[in-house]
Amino acid sequence: MTDTHVTNRPLTLLGLGDMGTALARTWLAAGHPLTVWNRTAAKADALAAEGAAVAASPAEAVAANTLVVLCLLDDASVGAALDGVDLTGKDLVNLTTGTPAEGRARAAWAEARGARFLDSGIMATPGMIGVPEAGGYVFHSGSRALFDAHRATLEVPAGARFVGEDPGHAALHDVALLSAMYGLFAGVSHAYALIEGEDVAPSSLAPLLSEWLGAMGFFVGNAAERLASRDFTTGVVSNLAMQVAGSGTLLRASADQGVSAELIGPYLDLMRERLEADPVAHAGEDTTGAITLLRRG
Amino acid sequence: MTDTHVTNRPLTLLGLGDMGTALARTWLAAGHPLTVWNRTAAKADALAAEGAAVAASPAEAVAANTLVVLCLLDDASVGAALDGVDLTGKDLVNLTTGTPAEGRARAAWAEARGARFLDSGIMATPGMIGVPEAGGYVFHSGSRALFDAHRATLEVPAGARFVGEDPGHAALHDVALLSAMYGLFAGVSHAYALIEGEDVAPSSLAPLLSEWLGAMGFFVGNAAERLASRDFTTGVVSNLAMQVAGSGTLLRASADQGVSAELIGPYLDLMRERLEADPVAHAGEDTTGAITLLRRG
Repeated sequence: MTDTHVTNRPLTLLGLGDMGTALARTWLAAGHPLTVWNRTAAKADALAAEGAAVAASPAEAVAANTLVVLCLLDDASVGAALDGVDLTGKDLVNLTTGTPAEGRARAAWAEARGARFLDSGIMATPGMIGVPEAGGYVFHSGSRALFDAHRATLEVPAGARFVGEDPGHAALHDVALLSAMYGLFAGVSHAYALIEGEDVAPSSLAPLLSEWLGAMGFFVGNAAERLASRDFTTGVVSNLAMQVAGSGTLLRASADQGVSAELIGPYLDLMRERLEADPVAHAGEDTTGAITLLRRG
Repeated sequence: MTDTHVTNRPLTLLGLGDMGTALARTWLAAGHPLTVWNRTAAKADALAAEGAAVAASPAEAVAANTLVVLCLLDDASVGAALDGVDLTGKDLVNLTTGTPAEGRARAAWAEARGARFLDSGIMATPGMIGVPEAGGYVFHSGSRALFDAHRATLEVPAGARFVGEDPGHAALHDVALLSAMYGLFAGVSHAYALIEGEDVAPSSLAPLLSEWLGAMGFFVGNAAERLASRDFTTGVVSNLAMQVAGSGTLLRASADQGVSAELIGPYLDLMRERLEADPVAHAGEDTTGAITLLRRG
């Protein structure tokens, strides 16, 4: 067979929410024969008009192609949709949002049914799909062979990054990055709340915040080094004892401005806990040592 | 008089902690006649060897020069050091860390004693002082005339940024930027805690985190626009309803990894509170609307 154009491989997609629909459109636009299924069939109508084959059931959709992409509501939806479906010889790519544990369990489940499996985490919104300059991408983990076989197809909607054969690692990377993002959002939210009612425009504070946060981004690499060495002694930043002492000013200023400390207080508490656990040993650390206290969930 | 070299103005500095000592050295190195005072006199010895005049009391130090820089432990230390000292005609620049309210009260106190006053917030560690490429700087607020008169001298140790005639605004900018920084640190800390014990090296996650946080920095400008317009409807990002729904995955994944949600949970709770206050009106917002809930401290 020489007539299979490698960039036009056929595939199946289960799930046509906002994200699934965006994915479908990019594969159709790129000339990939696409079979779709959605629990609510009406969502497939527009895609049918754009050339998608609409399957009447998950089994029919899965039977149509070797590569089967899942973009469903949650892990339980994956189990429900594929219950009793023959997966022998299939290549499943699970874009459904889930936890590392769900990714691992679903990989074992799929492999026991004769499929290869990738668990994946999409670092993009639907509007960023098919827009390379938007910078969205997808973490994939699990079967390296599957990833290598279908990489070109997987990269049509967004960049593809393989992060390990442990099928839990795509979700792990996903939640790690989202956690960091929400921390950033939380800190910035507190900052803007502080100036509300003051004669300081958000648009005046914004460039100062952006510049400052860019400079403070050194923390990411600094923390990685210290976690690897387990030596948390401060380098250029203020030491933990000074930062704990200064946190009182931050809390008093917030209270004076009528701003709840609920978003930043927990981190200030964690710094203090780290310091008080051994003031002599920890006073000269930076704040990265506090990370070691978080494994108590 | 034509022999007063504008870049070599004499000045007085009260307070020789790590920061004060670093400041003193840059002024001495730049050729400024400097008079210093510290509560613990021994700290002045090294500076005396470098050319500083050491005053025996705050009154003597203040009497020596028009420009008087304060870098003391806290606002109470300023009041204690200058209690009963004649401040008539003095230009006070208060680099002591404090709250906006303390800055305002101290400005009124200084002006009532015949001084001009700037309250200031140092966005640098001692190691960044006198190192322009380190990017540290100082926020100043209060007397514009004082700032203009002494700007060249003030810029010797670090860049000087005037942020308004309200003497509380330097401290306000200081706490706003520090809050945002601690949020960033908190989110990154949670991210690293998630991978502890997994076969993912911190040094592998670091560049992904840096890239992602750089991309998510759009939040700073986005929030400023939405706060100005009071229209929080989402643009490119996932809407609030989707993010609240997805927060369950983040919390379950954290629990599975044995990581406490104490640092990111409060922000997820705040998103949910915003959504539940009016699900119809707020579902299509991004997360910036949650900022408006924080004024309850």
